[in-house]
Amino acid sequence: SHNENNLSGDVGVSAGMASAGMAEESVDEASAARRAHLEHALSEIFAADQVSTSPTICERHSRGQSLQDVCAASGVTHEPRRLVDAVVWPRDGSQCQALVEAAWHGGFVIAPYGGGTNVSGALDLPVADSRPIVCCDMARMNRILELDLDNLIVRAEAGVVGQHLESALRRYGVTLGHEPDSMEFSTLGGWIATLASGMKKNRYGNIEDLILDVHWLSPRGAFVRRSLRCNPRESAGMAVQRLILGSEGRVGLIVDASLRLSRRPQNVLYRSAIFRAPEEGVKFLRAIEQSGHKPASVRLMDNDQFQIGQVLRPNARHWRARLMRRVQRFLVLRVWGFEADRMVVCTLVMEGTRAECRRQWRCARRWMRAFGGRSAGSENARRGYALTFAIAYIRDFLLRFGIYGESFETSVSWDLALPVCEAVKKAIAEHCARCQLGGHVLSWRITQLYKTGVTLYFYLGLAGRRAGKLQPPQADDLKDFEALEHLARALILAMGGAVSHHHGIGSLRRRYVPEVFSPARVRTENALKQWLDPRKIFLDFS
Amino acid sequence: SHNENNLSGDVGVSAGMASAGMAEESVDEASAARRAHLEHALSEIFAADQVSTSPTICERHSRGQSLQDVCAASGVTHEPRRLVDAVVWPRDGSQCQALVEAAWHGGFVIAPYGGGTNVSGALDLPVADSRPIVCCDMARMNRILELDLDNLIVRAEAGVVGQHLESALRRYGVTLGHEPDSMEFSTLGGWIATLASGMKKNRYGNIEDLILDVHWLSPRGAFVRRSLRCNPRESAGMAVQRLILGSEGRVGLIVDASLRLSRRPQNVLYRSAIFRAPEEGVKFLRAIEQSGHKPASVRLMDNDQFQIGQVLRPNARHWRARLMRRVQRFLVLRVWGFEADRMVVCTLVMEGTRAECRRQWRCARRWMRAFGGRSAGSENARRGYALTFAIAYIRDFLLRFGIYGESFETSVSWDLALPVCEAVKKAIAEHCARCQLGGHVLSWRITQLYKTGVTLYFYLGLAGRRAGKLQPPQADDLKDFEALEHLARALILAMGGAVSHHHGIGSLRRRYVPEVFSPARVRTENALKQWLDPRKIFLDFS
Repeated sequence: SHNENNLSGDVGVSAGMASAGMAEESVDEASAARRAHLEHALSEIFAADQVSTSPTICERHSRGQSLQDVCAASGVTHEPRRLVDAVVWPRDGSQCQALVEAAWHGGFVIAPYGGGTNVSGALDLPVADSRPIVCCDMARMNRILELDLDNLIVRAEAGVVGQHLESALRRYGVTLGHEPDSMEFSTLGGWIATLASGMKKNRYGNIEDLILDVHWLSPRGAFVRRSLRCNPRESAGMAVQRLILGSEGRVGLIVDASLRLSRRPQNVLYRSAIFRAPEEGVKFLRAIEQSGHKPASVRLMDNDQFQIGQVLRPNARHWRARLMRRVQRFLVLRVWGFEADRMVVCTLVMEGTRAECRRQWRCARRWMRAFGGRSAGSENARRGYALTFAIAYIRDFLLRFGIYGESFETSVSWDLALPVCEAVKKAIAEHCARCQLGGHVLSWRITQLYKTGVTLYFYLGLAGRRAGKLQPPQADDLKDFEALEHLARALILAMGGAVSHHHGIGSLRRRYVPEVFSPARVRTENALKQWLDPRKIFLDFS
Repeated sequence: SHNENNLSGDVGVSAGMASAGMAEESVDEASAARRAHLEHALSEIFAADQVSTSPTICERHSRGQSLQDVCAASGVTHEPRRLVDAVVWPRDGSQCQALVEAAWHGGFVIAPYGGGTNVSGALDLPVADSRPIVCCDMARMNRILELDLDNLIVRAEAGVVGQHLESALRRYGVTLGHEPDSMEFSTLGGWIATLASGMKKNRYGNIEDLILDVHWLSPRGAFVRRSLRCNPRESAGMAVQRLILGSEGRVGLIVDASLRLSRRPQNVLYRSAIFRAPEEGVKFLRAIEQSGHKPASVRLMDNDQFQIGQVLRPNARHWRARLMRRVQRFLVLRVWGFEADRMVVCTLVMEGTRAECRRQWRCARRWMRAFGGRSAGSENARRGYALTFAIAYIRDFLLRFGIYGESFETSVSWDLALPVCEAVKKAIAEHCARCQLGGHVLSWRITQLYKTGVTLYFYLGLAGRRAGKLQPPQADDLKDFEALEHLARALILAMGGAVSHHHGIGSLRRRYVPEVFSPARVRTENALKQWLDPRKIFLDFS
């Protein structure tokens, strides 16, 4: 069959690649038997159109969206690279179950795959492992299984994509309210596996607040509730069933999950405010956080992002619009005396009834004035949020011209917000000067507010050795960039920031975990991996 | 020394009791050596005034506040009972660490002890275990270690009692806002171990929302963060460090924890409302939940509790007050046409600025009217909350007259709220009639609102065989009572309710866990216990 041909053809190539790391037993009888077994096992479970071993498809399923992943896709990588040997698209939970069982008995590895938007190297595949690797793409498991409007609960399959889930829910007047920047592509299962955070978490909560229950399959057995009903909250011993949150595909396959919904807000109101300097902006955020009238989203962008936002805004066509901009500029810089290279901008999204939105903005405006800020209209805010979605595309575009860019994030307590931004900025500038690297930019924004601190989001850009010319990514440029990233992360950790707020650990940040937690914590996570997945049929970064 | 005398005297007695379950090797050399070792080990760590083997003190530290515990204290129990052999009061984390190490090497068991308010049988001690058991009473570890008003973070030792922590924080204008009914006695460590829920969780969150980090000692090593700074949120792999939440003393000793604070509210407003029937009351709660103006606490009491509230209110001394009550009664029953034996009462506590409180009440009042409710003043509400604290005392008082009482709780989705209450009420009435038990009462209240459901809190009372006469608890009466409790819990589970909302599992509800979760989930919790505590130096219920 088509299916079998594909398998026998492709698995061979890839097993050959893998054997680079395992010199001795390269194309021996054992591995041939394994390939035959894989081929047979997958065809027992899946229809022909549910399996592929096409090199293009396998390549695309062997990486996420980190800079390293994007470079690797162009063939630039420091280390030997492994690709998945096959991709399968299960249709339901029983096929997932059969896949896990087949991997257990057949000795192959499963790499769960959602939207492919991970930026943690979670899809770094083990070069030294000679077993075949099967990517389990959840794309066809995208159904809403239950929609309980009475209790505001939705149960959906793990492969459902953020924007599709939201548009399906919209028809019923409800929303999950979970809007990570990746929601165009990222999936429910991916959110759970990485502990995602949505833009509007102030109103709706982060993924851990939304999740009522997760149905997942570990090699040790299914984690599932015997009752079909979800409880709003329980005290039922150690919550081991929730360890799948943040597990990054290491211990099992997420099948479906139950989540709490909210009624759709009647109104949405965008506003923005400018402040003379970051200090005033942060004071404003803090006042907002403590006010009890927190908008659904509040973000503060540094001066670089403010300026880029000004450059990127569409040209004003009409003379009146052009005039308005000049007047605004005059007002801001000459009359109010803001400095163009110091001012920062804060965007706000209010949601709720008309009265709620108005109240939130009234409260915000009061604090804005108290800290010398000025209202900057709703267009700035709208554009700010739209821009977020575009950033990944811009990064990939610039890379073609030898300009390397990546975002990284952390969370810190309030008093560390600006000190960490400044320290990272300074350290990177010094390193670039010392090592005579090309031009660079480090820009930050504060994207989430918590009672005790904030989320910091950095954009780092570095011009490579031959920047400006159309070129493939260069290994030495990438190495320079990674050194900068490491410098920043080490500094963040030393100052007391989190290893990650919502991107996760993956293979990229695995090395920092022992710097964050005590040995017993680290060993326990590994022991749990060992218990749940003794044959290591899921990926492992430890 | 005094210390050594105590130990050698008392441990002997108790080791004798323990050996009842282990016929063979009762007072052999091995156990004598173990006693000597315990005595020595404790004196190496603790000063004389930090150790006791007084029988009274040991008895008091060998139980919680469940009906079974209270009966056992009077000598009534179905099963052989084990007491702790010694109580220690560590002063700091290093003494805790030394205790865990001594237990590991010396082969004794540690029973962590906070306020002694558990109602889950979490202190049921293993009769068949011949090792000495040391109760680790955290009462002297009650300090605030760090108060960071800048970032609204407090780090406090596990033994700090709820009301003491709150009154210390009050001086600085902040609050944790965690008010479980037990807060007069219960401790921070106990809240973490049982996954406590506070009355005002709508405003401040449950304990899992308040906890930023926990420092705890497992036999496998300390779970502690390397940085002294707390992050508001992180995605750092599987959150094994948070497994101590809900662990009920099975896997380690909680030393201290960091929690998020809130500014103290400027205003508190109590209000209450009456409704014709439970159905209207629940509709009202649901509207409030979805309104976005949820008061800090909203509770709905059934008709029994409403009537008891009327009986228990202090006598009106003044003729005018007496007249007012009669007018009120006339108004409610004759003019408005409420039925005295159907109406229910809802109490509300609003917190925040004056404007916030007013807005919340305005919103609540609108819904109250929409569902035919009437305002019942602030006095009813205040008394309702005060009564909660008194209930434990009333239970103990009635027990002396052969009347057995206990509360139990669950959480269910919205549509199950009243059906579960009614089904439990009916099943218990039928069972009492069928088995010709004495008079009984089953009363419920809804104590917490969530987007997807509520917390149900039941009070069950049963008149024993010779109720009314001053008497010690009777074993057969207790058995009848336990059968009723089991009947209710089995029904709750069958209908889809939680095994517990905040009381926890302990030994009393351990049997239901396999009915709630899949085998893999249950086995994983046990495997984790086995990994963290391979020598079982902490208690185990499984």
